[in-house]
Order: sequence, then C-alpha cells, then structure tokens
Amino acid sequence: MLEAMVSARVGDDVYEDDPTVKELEALGAEMVGKEASLFVPSGTFGNQLAILTHTRRGDEVIVPESNHIVEHEVGAMAVISGVQLRTLRDDRGRVAIEDLERLYREEDIHHPRTGLICMENAHSSGSVVPLENLEEVYQFARSKGVPVHLDGARIFNAACHLRVGAPEIAQYADSVMFCLSKGLCAPVGSLLAGSKEFIKKARKMRKLMGGGMRQVGYLAAAGLVALKVMPQKLEEDHRKAQTLARQLSRVEGIEVFFDRLDINMVFFRVRRESFSDADFLQFLLQRGIKINPPMKGEYRLVTHYWISYPAIEHTASSIAEFMEKAQGGDGTKSL
Amino acid sequence: MLEAMVSARVGDDVYEDDPTVKELEALGAEMVGKEASLFVPSGTFGNQLAILTHTRRGDEVIVPESNHIVEHEVGAMAVISGVQLRTLRDDRGRVAIEDLERLYREEDIHHPRTGLICMENAHSSGSVVPLENLEEVYQFARSKGVPVHLDGARIFNAACHLRVGAPEIAQYADSVMFCLSKGLCAPVGSLLAGSKEFIKKARKMRKLMGGGMRQVGYLAAAGLVALKVMPQKLEEDHRKAQTLARQLSRVEGIEVFFDRLDINMVFFRVRRESFSDADFLQFLLQRGIKINPPMKGEYRLVTHYWISYPAIEHTASSIAEFMEKAQGGDGTKSL
Amino acid sequence: MLEAMVSARVGDDVYEDDPTVKELEALGAEMVGKEASLFVPSGTFGNQLAILTHTRRGDEVIVPESNHIVEHEVGAMAVISGVQLRTLRDDRGRVAIEDLERLYREEDIHHPRTGLICMENAHSSGSVVPLENLEEVYQFARSKGVPVHLDGARIFNAACHLRVGAPEIAQYADSVMFCLSKGLCAPVGSLLAGSKEFIKKARKMRKLMGGGMRQVGYLAAAGLVALKVMPQKLEEDHRKAQTLARQLSRVEGIEVFFDRLDINMVFFRVRRESFSDADFLQFLLQRGIKINPPMKGEYRLVTHYWISYPAIEHTASSIAEFMEKAQGGDGTKSL
Amino acid sequence: MLEAMVSARVGDDVYEDDPTVKELEALGAEMVGKEASLFVPSGTFGNQLAILTHTRRGDEVIVPESNHIVEHEVGAMAVISGVQLRTLRDDRGRVAIEDLERLYREEDIHHPRTGLICMENAHSSGSVVPLENLEEVYQFARSKGVPVHLDGARIFNAACHLRVGAPEIAQYADSVMFCLSKGLCAPVGSLLAGSKEFIKKARKMRKLMGGGMRQVGYLAAAGLVALKVMPQKLEEDHRKAQTLARQLSRVEGIEVFFDRLDINMVFFRVRRESFSDADFLQFLLQRGIKINPPMKGEYRLVTHYWISYPAIEHTASSIAEFMEKAQGGDGTKSL
Repeated sequence: MLEAMVSARVGDDVYEDDPTVKELEALGAEMVGKEASLFVPSGTFGNQLAILTHTRRGDEVIVPESNHIVEHEVGAMAVISGVQLRTLRDDRGRVAIEDLERLYREEDIHHPRTGLICMENAHSSGSVVPLENLEEVYQFARSKGVPVHLDGARIFNAACHLRVGAPEIAQYADSVMFCLSKGLCAPVGSLLAGSKEFIKKARKMRKLMGGGMRQVGYLAAAGLVALKVMPQKLEEDHRKAQTLARQLSRVEGIEVFFDRLDINMVFFRVRRESFSDADFLQFLLQRGIKINPPMKGEYRLVTHYWISYPAIEHTASSIAEFMEKAQGGDGTKSL
Repeated sequence: MLEAMVSARVGDDVYEDDPTVKELEALGAEMVGKEASLFVPSGTFGNQLAILTHTRRGDEVIVPESNHIVEHEVGAMAVISGVQLRTLRDDRGRVAIEDLERLYREEDIHHPRTGLICMENAHSSGSVVPLENLEEVYQFARSKGVPVHLDGARIFNAACHLRVGAPEIAQYADSVMFCLSKGLCAPVGSLLAGSKEFIKKARKMRKLMGGGMRQVGYLAAAGLVALKVMPQKLEEDHRKAQTLARQLSRVEGIEVFFDRLDINMVFFRVRRESFSDADFLQFLLQRGIKINPPMKGEYRLVTHYWISYPAIEHTASSIAEFMEKAQGGDGTKSL
Repeated sequence: MLEAMVSARVGDDVYEDDPTVKELEALGAEMVGKEASLFVPSGTFGNQLAILTHTRRGDEVIVPESNHIVEHEVGAMAVISGVQLRTLRDDRGRVAIEDLERLYREEDIHHPRTGLICMENAHSSGSVVPLENLEEVYQFARSKGVPVHLDGARIFNAACHLRVGAPEIAQYADSVMFCLSKGLCAPVGSLLAGSKEFIKKARKMRKLMGGGMRQVGYLAAAGLVALKVMPQKLEEDHRKAQTLARQLSRVEGIEVFFDRLDINMVFFRVRRESFSDADFLQFLLQRGIKINPPMKGEYRLVTHYWISYPAIEHTASSIAEFMEKAQGGDGTKSL
Repeated sequence: MLEAMVSARVGDDVYEDDPTVKELEALGAEMVGKEASLFVPSGTFGNQLAILTHTRRGDEVIVPESNHIVEHEVGAMAVISGVQLRTLRDDRGRVAIEDLERLYREEDIHHPRTGLICMENAHSSGSVVPLENLEEVYQFARSKGVPVHLDGARIFNAACHLRVGAPEIAQYADSVMFCLSKGLCAPVGSLLAGSKEFIKKARKMRKLMGGGMRQVGYLAAAGLVALKVMPQKLEEDHRKAQTLARQLSRVEGIEVFFDRLDINMVFFRVRRESFSDADFLQFLLQRGIKINPPMKGEYRLVTHYWISYPAIEHTASSIAEFMEKAQGGDGTKSL
C-alpha cells in the first residue's frame, strides 16, 4: 500500500484532474453498485455531506438512536445542514417499521418535511442489520418519496457476514458512505456513492465543507489497494474476533456480547469491579495493549489485518491474568 | 378587553417606548416570578426565541418527544438556532430522570454539548406534569450547568389544576413562555420571561427573528386584561371540560381519555367507524360545531370563557345524536 | 381604525380561518398587483421570510449596501436562511448594472449560487428609486433566472412620488413586502405578496419563524382601513415634509438633504457643533419634540397623518431657536 | 518527501495519538509564532474552521471583497457558521482603515455584532500586503475587541517577499491558516494556528466539520518535510516568476501585471483577441502546457519547485509563437 502511495500519479482533484482519484472513485462506485462516488476525508464528513446533499434546510432526518450519526458526529447536521434530527428506537441498528411510520411526518403546516432516513450497516454496535430490515425501510421510504442514506463505514464487513456482495446491501439506499480506513486498512479517507446527479451535487457541497483536496492521489492510491485487496480478507478478521471472544468468555468476570459478534468487533463488560477502569487499562498498557476507556460500561476490541493470532492470545491471557489477580482466583469460570 | 385595546397608550416598542407593553411585560414577569419578560407574537416564537437565546449553535436540546416543540414547531430549532433536537421518551410530558441522564452528553470530542432541556406544563396532551417531576429535572439540569426552558403556554391552567401559584411552577425553569391567547383569551401574543440578562439578550434576538413590532400596545392592552382577569376564571373552564367529558363518556362508541383531563381540553376517540371522520365533522358543522380533524386518531375539544354550559350540552347531544344514527341504536352505553 | 379593530370578525389564522385577515390579504395582493399576500408581524419579518422562501441554504443574496436589509436587520439572513450576503454599491438605493453583473456568480465549483437580488423602494434614505433602475435590475435578474424581492416597506410613498400605481413598481419584483404601519398608520403589521405558489410556501415558513398568529383579525381590521384610506393621503405627508425641509433649510447651521426629499422623511445635518447631540435632543424634548439620535451624523424627521402643519412649524422654530442660542445669532442664514 | 511519507510513524489523530501529526503541529505553530496548530484537509477547511471557532451565529464577518474567502469558498460561512459576510473594498488585499471603521457595527438593537475581521497575505491577486496595513487593521480590531484571522495560505511567500519571518506577519492576527501544499509542495493539507485555547476549541469544531482524520501521519510526514525544507526555497520560485513575467512582457499582445508580481504568480491579459481562449489553451496544451481558463479575463501562471527555467522558457516561447501566428507578426513588441 505504501508502495502504491509513492508511485501514484497525482493531479489537482478540485479540478477533477487526479487520475488516481478518478480510478478510485470509479472502482468504489462499482463495488457498491452505484453510478458514481466521491473521495472524502472521513466517514463523518461523508455522512454529513450526504445529509447536506439530500436535504433542504428545515427537513427532519430520521436516524436510529444508537447510530454513529447520532452518537458520534457532534450534532453536525443541525449546524451544517440546518435539519432536525429525529431519533428512532432501534435494536442494534434494526428498526420496527411501525416506529418509522409513527415518526414520518404527513404534510401539515406544523410539521417539518421528513427529508431523509439513515440506516447503518454493519452497525457500530458490532451487529449486522439483516437485509430484510433494510429492504422494508427502503420500501417504506420509497412509498413516501423520502431518500435513504446508508452509513456503510463497514459495509464490506456486513457483506462478508451476510455472504452477499456489497451492492446487495447498498441497493436499499440512495447513497452509501464507506470507509477505506478501518478494516480496509487505508490510512485516511472514505467514499460517498450514489447516482451521478447526486455525486455531482455532492462534489460542490464537498468544496463548501472544505473537503476539496489537491494532490490527494497519494491517499487514493492507498485506497485503491484497500478496495482491491482487503474485502476478501475481512472474513479472517471476523474469525479472529470469534477467537478472541471465545477466549475472553472463559475469563471469570468478563461478559462478552455474543449477540453483537457479527464482524471484527468484540464488546465485553468487566463484571466485578473491585478495581477501576484506569487500573485495568494501565495493566494492559504495561503488557503493550492499548484499549480505549469503556463507553457506557462496555469495552471494545477490534481485530484487523495487523492483529495476529498470537496478539489475540496475548490480549486474552493478559486480561485473564489481570482478572485473576483482581479476584484472587485463577480467572477461569468455575462452571 | 376590546375597550382596553382602543383606549391603549401606545409607542414604538422597538425603542422600548410603548408604556402599555412595558406595563404588560412587568406584570407578566411578576406573575411567573421572574425578573423580566418580553412580548412575542406567538407561542412558537417565544419557544424558539428561548432556544436561540439559551444555546450556542451546535448544542443539543433535550425535549420530551410529545411536546409542542417537537410536534408542532416545524423543526424550527435546527433552522433558526442550528441546534440538534434530542427527543426524550415521555408520558404526557413527564419524564424519567434515568432517561434524561442517559441522553445527557458528557464532554467528548464526538459529542455536542447538551445546551438546554425543555419541559412543558400544562402539557398539550391535556395533562399537568407534577411539580416533583419538574423539580427533579431542574435539579439534574442545575447539577450539570444546563439551563431549563418551560413551554408554559398554559401555565395558568397548570397552576389552577395544581392549586399553586404560577411562580411555584416556573421556579423550576430558567425561562418560561406563556400565552396571553388560548385560555387567557387575548387575541394575539405570548410572553417570554426570565432573568433581566436573559431578556436583554432575547430582546435583540427577537429583532433578528422579525418579532420587533411597533405600536404593539393595542395587543398589549388586551394582554393586560387577560393577565389581570382571566387566570382566576380558568377553574371554571376546567369544570366545563369535566362536564363535557362526563357527558361524552356516556355516548356509546366514544372513548374519553380521563387520564388527560387536567385542564380545559377533552380528548376522545370515536371507537366504531362505520363512518368517516369527514361524515362526523360534517354532521357537527351542520349543528354549528366546528372541530379540527383528529390527530393520531384523537379528537380534541377545548372549553374556554366563551363556551357556555348550553353550548357544551349542545355539543355532547349532537355527538350522541350522530353516534346513535350511525349505529342504529340510542347512543347510550348498554352497560 | 380603532372602531374597525373592535368590530372585527376574527378566527384562527393559522388554520386560515380568520375572515378579516383573508380580506386584508386579498386586498393587499391586489393593491400591488400580485396573486396573493400574507400577513406578517413586521417589515423585517416579511423581508427575512421572503429570503427564506426564495433561497436554498448556501445561496448568495445581492443587496444594495445601504438597504434596510443590510443596515437594520441584525444579520438575520445568515442565521435564519443560511445564505451569504453580498453587498452592492448603491446611490440612495439605485444601482449600476455593471456592478450587479460583476457580483453575479457564474456556475463554478468555488462559487455559491446567486439566489436572490433585493431592491428597496422607497429607499430608507428618503429617496425614490426610478422605475428604469428597477426595470433594468429585473431584466438582468430574469435573464439569469434569479428572483427579485422588493423591500417596499414604503411602496405607496414611492408610488405617490412617481405618480404611478404600486403595481407598476411591484411588477419589477417576484415578491414585495410592504408595511401597514409607518405612513399607512396601522399599529402593527406588514404584508408579503407574490405568486400563489410563493405565498403558499411562505405561509409554512412563517409558521417555522413563529409568525403564525391566532386571532390576528383585530390587527388585520386596522390594516384594512390603512390600505383603503391611507395611500391617497400620502401626498399630503410628502408636502408636509417639503414644508418642514424648507423651513429647516433657512436655519443657520442646518443642512437639509434635498436630494433625498422624495417622500415623508427629512434628513438633515447640524453643521456647527459647539454643543452635543444630547444638548440638542434635550432642548427639543423640553419643547415636546422627541427625535432619535443621529445615525452616521444625520438626523431624520418623519411627517405623517398625525403631524399637523402647526406641529411642523413648532418643530422648525424650536430648532431655529436652539441654533440661534447656540450660535449667539438669530439663526437665519446670512445670505 | 515521499520517503518521509512511507517511513512515517502514525496513530489515530482523532485521539491525538499520531506522533507525526503532533510533531507537525508543534513545528507549524512555532514557525508562525503561535502557541498551537491543527492539521486540516484544505485551506478552505482551515479558514472556515477559524470562522466557526471565532464567532457566534449571527455575527458579521468583515472580509476584503477580493479575498479567497469571498471569491472561492462557496459562501460556506453562512451555511456552516451562520454568520453574515460584510465585504470591504480593497486594493490587492490592502484596506483603508476608514472603510473598516465605517463597516464596524456599534452596539445597536438593529445591528449584528462585528465578530471577526479577516485579512489575506500573500493575497491571491499575487500581491503582498504591507506589514503596516496588517498592523493598523489589527490595532483597530483590538481596540474594538474583535479578533483577526489571517488567511496565510501563502504566508511563507509573503514573508520571503517582505524579508521578515512569518511570525512578524502572523503577530497581527489571532489565528492564521497556512497551506503545506501550494508552494511548500506537500500533497495535501493545511494548518490552523492560534492560542492553545483557540486550537482546543477548533479541534472539536474540526470533528464536527468532518475533518477528524485517522492515520493522517502519512500526510503529516510530507508536511513536515515541506515546513522544514521548502520555505527557504521560495525565493527561487519568486525569481522564476520574475523571469517568466519579463519574458512574457516582451510578447506583443501580452499585458503582464507587474504590480502584482510579489510572489510566485504571474497574472497576464491577452490583449488582441482575433482568437478564442479555447484556441490559446489548446495550442499550449499541444506544447505540453496546461493552463486554467482565465478568471475575469486574466490568466495566471504559477512557478514552483518543480518548474524549471527551461520549462519557463518553453512556456514563454510557446506563448510568443502563438501570438505571432495569431497576429501575423513576429510577436515582439514593436517599440
């Protein structure tokens, strides 16, 4: 990938003059079954750009309440797009059509227009939303003339889990954003894909948002490698996550969420707390393992190409060692 | 009230030069126990002005999902204030503190700031939120340094129901909007009340929103009468609603929501539907009774100063007559 | 007018159910030659509502730099509409087409779309913009597909000065706002007029901006009298301004701007300043004359229906008296 | 630079965990004499982020009318920041203090707050603004408590031309954005510099705008080389521009703007037009020279590290050849 970067042919992408970016955007569109795509600096940028491009100010945007757009994008849609978030109850990204119908706004002088529905797959809870749920949301949306945007940051992980091609997922959305970083391992960048007309409009809005970059072909070159090589390697990442989950689940005091083990993310809770999160993190750091502090009480571990099986075992055994010490036992569940 | 209007002393209120407006704003502030208040053209204007004044763009605003601000204000906060709505599950305006705690955003680079919490009392479902619920919300908010705005469009109805003064309700909010129209019977206008500093800032923001009006003393004169005379008459409105509700509840096929009969609004559902809403409305219109179409399946009737007991009986008996015909019975529940 | 107010038939205007408002809106539309009009609480509200209705967020709006929208509307368009102001050099509201052409944005990925051009007539400098200038602006705008909004707060004054009907002015704009207050003497309110489709959209945006008012027929009744009776009386206001201007111009030390004496506003500068503005204003206040402090060094006096010729003479002679004392002379120009 | 990229140590910059980015941001801050700096994906992003961070919604931002922020940033400030642009007349980026004083808004209920003043140096017209002008603008701004942002996309070119260090320019601004691309030759990226407190706030706003990137150290590595090596090479770029300008000025029909030849950009006009711009561009393209179409009638050529003296001569002689043919002469001015 680094080799590809240094040998990239570049140009000025604001003038659509960078051949590597063009190649990346064409391949990216094809890989999710859309007409066109656009390089953007981050997943948040891509999601917010999609919202800005689909909506008119004053619209309402329906988003499952545990989605990345709600949880982790700093409330950007109100600032950049002037649209109102309407959160939808969800179960790991899955939604009930009745809830969606209830939130949809019929025309009334007191109502904003429902301007967009967003879904996310794979969901950042670690779970993959079934195709059926995406399909029924999309059919409802179409019946009302409302577009659907898919936050597909990890769409290739979802495709791998569902054993379908990414286009089979993306067909249930008018636009889809996916990341070249994360599991695909490119250093920086995401793509926003949709119809040619949508991408043309998005290209201008990207400039407004400050995402028009110049000789960005170096990043695009890495992205091309990511797209060509990495999707077929994701299954291995998922297997690694399964392995890690199994090993952790044997540790006394660790609760692994197996209902959210669809992709390369392992969520777990540390049940007995005679110690602080800081103690736990500090111990692991001394073993060379750096973990983010827990969100809402849950730790997350992510496996990827650069995480080896020995590293997984080292992680699991280090956690077991800590728990054992903390509990004065041997850390194995006494079943 | 009309006499007061035509004999009003007026001036240019943009220059704070209208004595009648000044008198109204002083009295209005006093009546809800705040330092100052400001005349605004509508309740929606007052709520949105409060949001604009309290928040910075990019903040998140927590509002119970069935509140007027969510249901009936056209998504204005995203457009005017650039803030993100975060809806909170509620039961007739009451909220669970655990839900509120869950939505509150701790400082994190991925999070917007929680900039405001809104409550509504009386709630537009017809129910009054208990003081205890307002108090616990306010205490939570204060502990986090977040201001609270109260949509008190019908605060005097709530006060009447709770048998307390309006300041006892408004004490649990940093700002409160209340309407001079609705039950208080003034033709137009609402007041936004709060600290002197808040109202000073709101005065400028009101100009920005186009709500700086000139010789508005004519409306203020009506508002003064409304404030001085009407609050003590609201109890009668509530009794009228009870009467109407009792009469309607005896009609076969009518389901009255007695759990939301705290003020002057009667909500009911027409259970057997061998006829359309249009048939029902048309029949009543011929009897001189104009009702709005149902919202989410519910009809709403509002009693007020100008609705007499005979008018109530006429309404109830007309509805009974319709239901009887529609069902081929005598319209009385056969218990 | 007050009689009309108290005997008005009213209803709930949010549901388009107030007959007096409907009558006012129909008459208002007719009087400026447009299909429909909408009651709004202020002139600023009407201008900002027009901008919100015409534009998409991100558009650029070209406005002569001395217009009310630039000078006196608190920068509202950026907040409410998310559009970028582009100021155009002007001479008392008149503009050069070359300047307009220079500011118009051709399609380019670096450019916002020119979404609206605003003109103002009569201009708040006291001057009336010639029809020719409005016409060439409108023709340029049409050739580019850009709508034109006219801030016609004082359109009937302009019509009176130009000796044409208001529709002859308004024909050069897609929408026009005019005030029922100011010279027309209604206490509160303005109308925004345009095509039926435009007004339908504006009606919803008015609700969003908090300008949906309830029993607003009382104000509308006053507005109806204003529209029916007052336009033909404006000529007298203009004559009064001429009289006042002539009298002031004879006072030593007073410079009257005769090039901006087209309507009912007299602008003047006090040339010798051995005294402060506060001294001058205080002296006049003692004589029962209340004037605003100068803006950019200029005082403004406005004549209207309630200003009598004796009041004009009293004003002029009081100013002469002050200047005489201030200068130790007799206050008459020694020519 | 490419070597530096491939050998970069990287991490996740959203968590401030990328050592190369940290090193770049520290060096960047130091090189313009500020406390801290922040990596952003483009110059437009950096300018808009500065506006978002400095202002409150509803503020007015004063910017010279020919600046990049006005001309080339898609009207972003109204969309993202909700602030009103106020353009200031300028001469190649220089402004008259009297004009600035006239646009500054004193506190008044009709006025937005003047929230920011922006300057640009080197100016995108090719001219460098003298330090004296920056200083007087900054002193005026400070006297009013208004911050100043400097669009220093080409600040090192300005410093080179003025023969001062970049901090001597940046001292007249509270924040400064400068590009690592352009003359410094990094492929992508800019830095926004200011006080620690300002950058802390900007870091969060960058996330909101979608500019939080992950393993961005690869780009930062290139940026580090750019900052360390390139500034001292800019003088050569300027010399090349002088050379090119001199050669072009000898061509009959070419008018070079020597008053805007301060840095590495040569602006010229093609005076006799018996041919189209397309003909001209096509001819040069056949000679391997790609130029952008003219903006407002002016062509721009930019010299930089990768443009050699032979390439300059080839360009000048190709243009001469074209003009000669077009005019049937020898292309040399007949003086």
